[in-house]
Amino acid sequence: MVSKKIQDLISSNSTIREMFEEGKKLVSIYGKENVYDFSLGNPSVPAPDSINQAILDIISNKSFLEVHGYTNNAGIEEVRETISNSLNNKYKTNFSKDNIIMVVGAASGLNIIFKTILDDEDEVITFAPYFMEYNHYVANYGGKIVSISPNTNDFQPNLEEFKSKLSSKTKAVLINTPNNPTGVIYSEATIKSMTKILKDKEKEFGHEIYLISDEPYRELAYDNIDVPYITKYYKNTFIVYSYSKSLSLPGERIGYVVVSNEMKDNKDIFTALTIANRIIGSVNAPSLMQLVIQKCINEKVDLTTYNLNRNLLYDSLVEYGFECVKPQGAFYLFLKSPIPNDKEFCQKAKEFNLLFVPGSSFNCPGYVRISYCVDTNMIQRSLQAFKKLAEVYF
Amino acid sequence: MVSKKIQDLISSNSTIREMFEEGKKLVSIYGKENVYDFSLGNPSVPAPDSINQAILDIISNKSFLEVHGYTNNAGIEEVRETISNSLNNKYKTNFSKDNIIMVVGAASGLNIIFKTILDDEDEVITFAPYFMEYNHYVANYGGKIVSISPNTNDFQPNLEEFKSKLSSKTKAVLINTPNNPTGVIYSEATIKSMTKILKDKEKEFGHEIYLISDEPYRELAYDNIDVPYITKYYKNTFIVYSYSKSLSLPGERIGYVVVSNEMKDNKDIFTALTIANRIIGSVNAPSLMQLVIQKCINEKVDLTTYNLNRNLLYDSLVEYGFECVKPQGAFYLFLKSPIPNDKEFCQKAKEFNLLFVPGSSFNCPGYVRISYCVDTNMIQRSLQAFKKLAEVYF
Repeated sequence: MVSKKIQDLISSNSTIREMFEEGKKLVSIYGKENVYDFSLGNPSVPAPDSINQAILDIISNKSFLEVHGYTNNAGIEEVRETISNSLNNKYKTNFSKDNIIMVVGAASGLNIIFKTILDDEDEVITFAPYFMEYNHYVANYGGKIVSISPNTNDFQPNLEEFKSKLSSKTKAVLINTPNNPTGVIYSEATIKSMTKILKDKEKEFGHEIYLISDEPYRELAYDNIDVPYITKYYKNTFIVYSYSKSLSLPGERIGYVVVSNEMKDNKDIFTALTIANRIIGSVNAPSLMQLVIQKCINEKVDLTTYNLNRNLLYDSLVEYGFECVKPQGAFYLFLKSPIPNDKEFCQKAKEFNLLFVPGSSFNCPGYVRISYCVDTNMIQRSLQAFKKLAEVYF
Repeated sequence: MVSKKIQDLISSNSTIREMFEEGKKLVSIYGKENVYDFSLGNPSVPAPDSINQAILDIISNKSFLEVHGYTNNAGIEEVRETISNSLNNKYKTNFSKDNIIMVVGAASGLNIIFKTILDDEDEVITFAPYFMEYNHYVANYGGKIVSISPNTNDFQPNLEEFKSKLSSKTKAVLINTPNNPTGVIYSEATIKSMTKILKDKEKEFGHEIYLISDEPYRELAYDNIDVPYITKYYKNTFIVYSYSKSLSLPGERIGYVVVSNEMKDNKDIFTALTIANRIIGSVNAPSLMQLVIQKCINEKVDLTTYNLNRNLLYDSLVEYGFECVKPQGAFYLFLKSPIPNDKEFCQKAKEFNLLFVPGSSFNCPGYVRISYCVDTNMIQRSLQAFKKLAEVYF
């Protein structure tokens, strides 16, 4: 009696479960030390100490009802004010609390946006490779993902194909930069070309096309590379931000959505988003964590380890003969599979106790995702296994 | 460019906003001390001290990644085990962690259930008066609420009409006991009759009809009245529980869903619920709060104040001539409007600085909801206003 829509998801879920069970089996046979699990996206660098200090301060100094009571559906006003000021300082934007809605993580932020803007049959364009849960977030509200094929040269989006697939049905375009799974950051040139195309198409079709920037990895950028702030390039922009990675708080489900100032019907959209927050059941972002964010607005996780892992893994893999675009952000590396069948390559890797996620799971076969949000020691131990794996192919 | 589905909600939202603004206006004219706001359902009794102690213990003794990392989509196994043991002790049930899914509050719990079971056009029966957000939760997944008219004698459900409205389209029945807005607790006799009807109709239609019990007020029961535990009466039961009221943590968004052992396709349903938790964007219930619940499993808020408020308000209002079924649970009192038009009565009450919610907002015109989760002093100060209001009509 499970609904038709969710029936298919149960079988695809069992594939993930199998992968997980296989990993556990390897650990039971070879021991934890000898299995190299690069399949998860769970931050390995702990939250800054200031997070727990903030929790302590808040529960010591504020009343129970202030800390644990319902907040506005959009979030606590002072928290939103603090966030908007911080963004204004960093990006020379002009936000106030009325641009910010606190949400239960980025996944929830995307859901309330789609609930707000999508009518049945509306299309949302995104660029492969991409996080496939996007398909579900869009389908939840009757929409359909249209996927643009990957540009495997540098994993900047394929704008030629993008242009050709924009249609009167396109309600939104969804980007994710720094990107999961490639680690690539969309350059300013990319954003300028993309938004130029969008502006032209808005005119051509006579309606808004929203640009949704999913940015849980914004603070995870290496080598001082700039991550363009999208509201500066395009009016009808939503930013979806999460503290899951920037403060290593993924379990706490805390983030926010920015509605740009220049968006048409800005106020109605804002109201609709807060209603959506209520009726999809979030009601408000967790209250204690909202207050923690206010206190820790200038904090971010230490990137030293992630950067070390990135360089160690990238340099070694290239040395062994693998091909890969060097990641500029996030904590993933998107390796070209030496054989066209990425799932077969993942199976082969498992023989060396190496666990990856096939690129097919990001709508980009022929590649695998290697997460380096792991212990640096594990990477070091794993290198001999990567070397043996390379020797199978090169 | 707001979606058609959410467009209507914006206007109804502005009605609530107007009410809120009017309240603020009254406060600015007459002063906070002289406005008696009985319109909100925000707990006024603080969380037990043990909550903050538990937070302190957890952040002092567990690693950052254990406290703030992603958890299973269904929640932390040890937390679910603790909850199931506690339920087994209290209600002689036979649950394990595999019956329990941690959720972002009851609203989210209801959403994942409807996501799991509803196909387009499916009907969900509920009993007026009821929390009207139910309409949205069901509509989110293509379903339709069918409302049973109130039984204004004692606000136990009208089972004759219920029987007549059960049809082959009925996928679920949604009850809320102790009830918002009446404060009535469905008796064991009610539950027995209701489930007898459901069992007969399941046979007649040849498919399951789920009984969903929304129980955020379970622990708020007075005079030692028993709140029947529904899985003991009916196989295909979901329990939706929240700590918003039982521990005064509404801002933290923490609760759970129980899937009964005897439910058909129990395992598939459980899997589907965890997938739904993921794809509606909750991902997991807030991690720190999951751990807090484990530590505070035997705690509940002190009911002394709510009970005092209940008796004070009920006795006074009846003395002044109003009619009301004495509430047995929750923190609401559902007063009969002295005139048929409950909105007009609310307007009149405002002239005495008394703020209520019209029963129309619960699909039950002719009544008003008075929330007594307020300061007892405010109730005492308000009594002269209630008396004057009574004198208008009696």
